[in-house]
Amino acid sequence: MARRRLDDGMTVWLTGLPSAGKTTLARGLEKRLLVEGYRAEILDGDDLRARIGRELGFSREDRNENVRRIGFIAHLLSRNGVVAVCSVISPYRESRDELRALHGERFFEVHVATPVDVCGERDVKGLYARQRAGEISMLTGVDDVYEEPLAPEVVVPTHLQTVEQSVAQVWDSLVAWCP
Amino acid sequence: MARRRLDDGMTVWLTGLPSAGKTTLARGLEKRLLVEGYRAEILDGDDLRARIGRELGFSREDRNENVRRIGFIAHLLSRNGVVAVCSVISPYRESRDELRALHGERFFEVHVATPVDVCGERDVKGLYARQRAGEISMLTGVDDVYEEPLAPEVVVPTHLQTVEQSVAQVWDSLVAWCP
Repeated sequence: MARRRLDDGMTVWLTGLPSAGKTTLARGLEKRLLVEGYRAEILDGDDLRARIGRELGFSREDRNENVRRIGFIAHLLSRNGVVAVCSVISPYRESRDELRALHGERFFEVHVATPVDVCGERDVKGLYARQRAGEISMLTGVDDVYEEPLAPEVVVPTHLQTVEQSVAQVWDSLVAWCP
Repeated sequence: MARRRLDDGMTVWLTGLPSAGKTTLARGLEKRLLVEGYRAEILDGDDLRARIGRELGFSREDRNENVRRIGFIAHLLSRNGVVAVCSVISPYRESRDELRALHGERFFEVHVATPVDVCGERDVKGLYARQRAGEISMLTGVDDVYEEPLAPEVVVPTHLQTVEQSVAQVWDSLVAWCP
């Protein structure tokens, strides 16, 4: 499986609910990759939306377009020897599967599978509170759909382990998958 | 000038009028880069507009936003060892200078300086004819402004030499600039 060697480049796609821990996991994974001597870039859904999709909203079509754009950039990086670590809610299966098809073997999907009640307690950005207060709607996992991956490369239960354990779990799975 | 070594990555930014020969030059340069063993990606203005900016129009603000988005991607690639060859009309000095500032030493600006009358004769995409027929407006160099670079790394007179000579001119300049 020489095509999967990690230093040939890879897209690691972290999907999950808001406050599931995607960004934290992405940072930990990036740090580990850099320490181990790989090239790595984080592509964060909110950051990228501001940079290359500020006109996009939160309809199904617009969410998919945001995912498509980030995936396009990740693909450019990954085919040039970079590990693109993408933390994007990416609620719809169709758009994630589209990226998998685009990437071929270079796609490693991580389901950051924190239950919605735990996410709502963490509420890093205050989105769950704002949804409860009626200030926003279309919050993924609450009043908008999240389609869980059917066959991700790894499922991370962040509510059952420490951040370090979650990072190590993804790292070990990734290295085992890219021998 | 170790920071400028070409295999550390670089953004080569080709600016010029429609039909100036940017795409042809970009393809020739990419081919040469790959033959010489470098990593290279072409980022074409029209292609990228369709991929990550399909809502953008041709106002000054929208053109600058398109340039900014392409430059963001080029920067990600160039800081990871890739030579990003960007062919984008990019008519405004301010947006090109913004990219230069973003890139630091990794920015090599090429003015594809074909005169507008030669571009109008080539008219690869039929834009000049459509403008004359009144079907479109805001055509850069005709009824919309093009601000020439004041201090590009190289100026290419495609109307005075063959394609091969233009590619060789850019290649030689680039290699001399990245010792």
